[in-house]
Amino acid sequence: MSLMQEIGIRARRASRELALLPTEKKNEALSAMASALVDSSHRIETENAKDVASARADDMDAAFIDRLILNKKRIKEMADAILQIVSLPDPVGEIYDETTRPNGLKVAKMRVPIGVLGIIYESRPNVTADAAALCLKSGNAVILRGGSEAFHSNAIIANILSESLAKVFVTPDAVQFVKTPDRSAVMEMLKMNKYIDVIIPRGGYGLIKMVSENSSIPVVKHDAGVCHVYIDEGADAGKAADITINSKVQRPGVCNAAETLLVHSNWLKHLPGLLKTLWQMGVELRGCERTRAVYPAAKPATEDDWYAEYMELILAVKVVDTMDEAVEHIEKYGSHHTEAIVTPSKERGWEFVRKVDSSAVMVNASTRFNDGGQLGLGAEMGISTQKLHCRGPMGLKELTTYKYFVIGSGQVRG
Amino acid sequence: MSLMQEIGIRARRASRELALLPTEKKNEALSAMASALVDSSHRIETENAKDVASARADDMDAAFIDRLILNKKRIKEMADAILQIVSLPDPVGEIYDETTRPNGLKVAKMRVPIGVLGIIYESRPNVTADAAALCLKSGNAVILRGGSEAFHSNAIIANILSESLAKVFVTPDAVQFVKTPDRSAVMEMLKMNKYIDVIIPRGGYGLIKMVSENSSIPVVKHDAGVCHVYIDEGADAGKAADITINSKVQRPGVCNAAETLLVHSNWLKHLPGLLKTLWQMGVELRGCERTRAVYPAAKPATEDDWYAEYMELILAVKVVDTMDEAVEHIEKYGSHHTEAIVTPSKERGWEFVRKVDSSAVMVNASTRFNDGGQLGLGAEMGISTQKLHCRGPMGLKELTTYKYFVIGSGQVRG
Repeated sequence: MSLMQEIGIRARRASRELALLPTEKKNEALSAMASALVDSSHRIETENAKDVASARADDMDAAFIDRLILNKKRIKEMADAILQIVSLPDPVGEIYDETTRPNGLKVAKMRVPIGVLGIIYESRPNVTADAAALCLKSGNAVILRGGSEAFHSNAIIANILSESLAKVFVTPDAVQFVKTPDRSAVMEMLKMNKYIDVIIPRGGYGLIKMVSENSSIPVVKHDAGVCHVYIDEGADAGKAADITINSKVQRPGVCNAAETLLVHSNWLKHLPGLLKTLWQMGVELRGCERTRAVYPAAKPATEDDWYAEYMELILAVKVVDTMDEAVEHIEKYGSHHTEAIVTPSKERGWEFVRKVDSSAVMVNASTRFNDGGQLGLGAEMGISTQKLHCRGPMGLKELTTYKYFVIGSGQVRG
Repeated sequence: MSLMQEIGIRARRASRELALLPTEKKNEALSAMASALVDSSHRIETENAKDVASARADDMDAAFIDRLILNKKRIKEMADAILQIVSLPDPVGEIYDETTRPNGLKVAKMRVPIGVLGIIYESRPNVTADAAALCLKSGNAVILRGGSEAFHSNAIIANILSESLAKVFVTPDAVQFVKTPDRSAVMEMLKMNKYIDVIIPRGGYGLIKMVSENSSIPVVKHDAGVCHVYIDEGADAGKAADITINSKVQRPGVCNAAETLLVHSNWLKHLPGLLKTLWQMGVELRGCERTRAVYPAAKPATEDDWYAEYMELILAVKVVDTMDEAVEHIEKYGSHHTEAIVTPSKERGWEFVRKVDSSAVMVNASTRFNDGGQLGLGAEMGISTQKLHCRGPMGLKELTTYKYFVIGSGQVRG
């Protein structure tokens, strides 16, 4: 039996224990996890220093190293994020869709954990703690496979979390970390249908693609965000500017930031002012010909720009003659993540909501609101860009499934 | 561009039209589909005769040929099944989970079609009509790929349905049938992430495995049903017999039929009588040692028997000392499809529901009730055995997804 299979068997067994844990016990375990992180700050910092040293030796850039560094403050923030999950309602055990059939059978659904989640990530080490806490609260066992760049940090965090579970008499196998460094472990993980119910990749394009193409286990993708702001005719110039600026500038490196601005041709007179403001805020502008006719300082946009998820202060700008042209553009070039319309018309807002096929459609609000915390789900595992299972933020409820249960008094089928 | 890509592009375009179709228009289209099938009975029978002739030439057995044959009565039944879907509520457009955030944003979900479904099947030709009707009502475009054994029948049915859509001014691309006979078309289909949102395989173990292993598109599996009936201590002998017999005998060739009977050792005195009745009904019995001690006529069960989905009149029988032993057996050998308990105790029934991890758990009712019609969903695409997206019957609602929509008045993130 391979090491990965052993991990799988332990996780499956742990998942059965977790599925039946009362909310209070899960919250006690989460509190223990949070305390253990703070109490073990020194151990974490020591291990983290190894990752930081490797990153420096590999000449990684300053932003990369900054994301990697764990200090007492960041460890406290990780612990606080876990405590926040304590305060969220437990989705497990909810009974809904109750009906009674003509033959007297009582039919209902019960919300239950999915079972075993495999999380493959290449992000900051805090994902280790966040993911473990979300899985525990939703009653799932988790197998974590972090990126090599944060190997020591991820391993020590997972180790501390697992130890802290044992102290409150919850199986430490609820949180397991894959320590084998080679890629073959990931490939094996992606085929462990018997032990893993869902794979969640978190990371860049390459990781998502590798996982989708190789997994025989169902995958929930958290993919690219090529998000659009569409300014409709008649839009208030101030609101349009606020929403565009917030969507692009407030945090350009995240998936719900805007990449392309679409502007109705009847709004053109306001466009130069908006683009100038954006430029003053450090945004590089790449426009279609009609954009450049009113704002020549914009660089010409190429076909590639319409597909781009810049993740930085660059904005593509295109003028359209109708809402349908905007919708067509979004359908062709977008990633079905988040789009916003700025419009004075309720009807036009509604039309946009119906016609745009994205995980979240904003009317007169920033694209940046497509986020678990902002939409009221609490913490999230990411933003799903696929249509199966969950779309948009994946919070605690989205980490569950259901089973039907049927209460009879001896009914049989005729 | 390949033929499959062309089909994909047409389906994607059709899906956008279908997503916005009002319920009345979809119902009009379904009625047109039903009428067209009846009106074209002769054309269908002529094409069906070719499949039946091939099956005879290939020396297929009588049951196989019987499933394949389409006559006026069966065509009428296909049409009636479509008309039943007319009467089901349209899931699309439902607005739910509405909340208002502290910043005044109104957040809600809107139920929307998934988009384009790819259905790969090797079943009776009526699946062509059923699947097309369910997809149309739920606003999805469908790409159908049927088995070669019913190629002519499937092709003519799909063709008639598609023509009938055009007559009521709905895009005929809503229902497309893949006519290329070679397997490479299926392999190409499984990689068309850009055009297909979900793949639904319907068929035997080999098909499901091939699809899961090769698809880079999310799959909803309708897999094996290794279903159990567990007779708890104190169970009423009459109810236990009724439920066991119905679960095994009423229709043994379907996924929600029982394959294994688990019996609490305190119920042993009733077991010989039950097994004798089953035997009289033609059921072959394969028992554990303790079963054979009280009913020596049973053949000895092997390890393989516990895993078997017989699909015929064979029942494996095992004696257990506790409910937990039954639950362990189900976890180890079952397929998470359907299990039933017969018990006089509400508490014990509830415990079984909580501990068993299956798409449906029946208390004092036959396993045969895990069915879209029986559970109140109306028609179904199949019974999902996976945990992502939907579990148990996949009806109209399960053929949809949602999008978030957010109505603001200029809100941005701070």
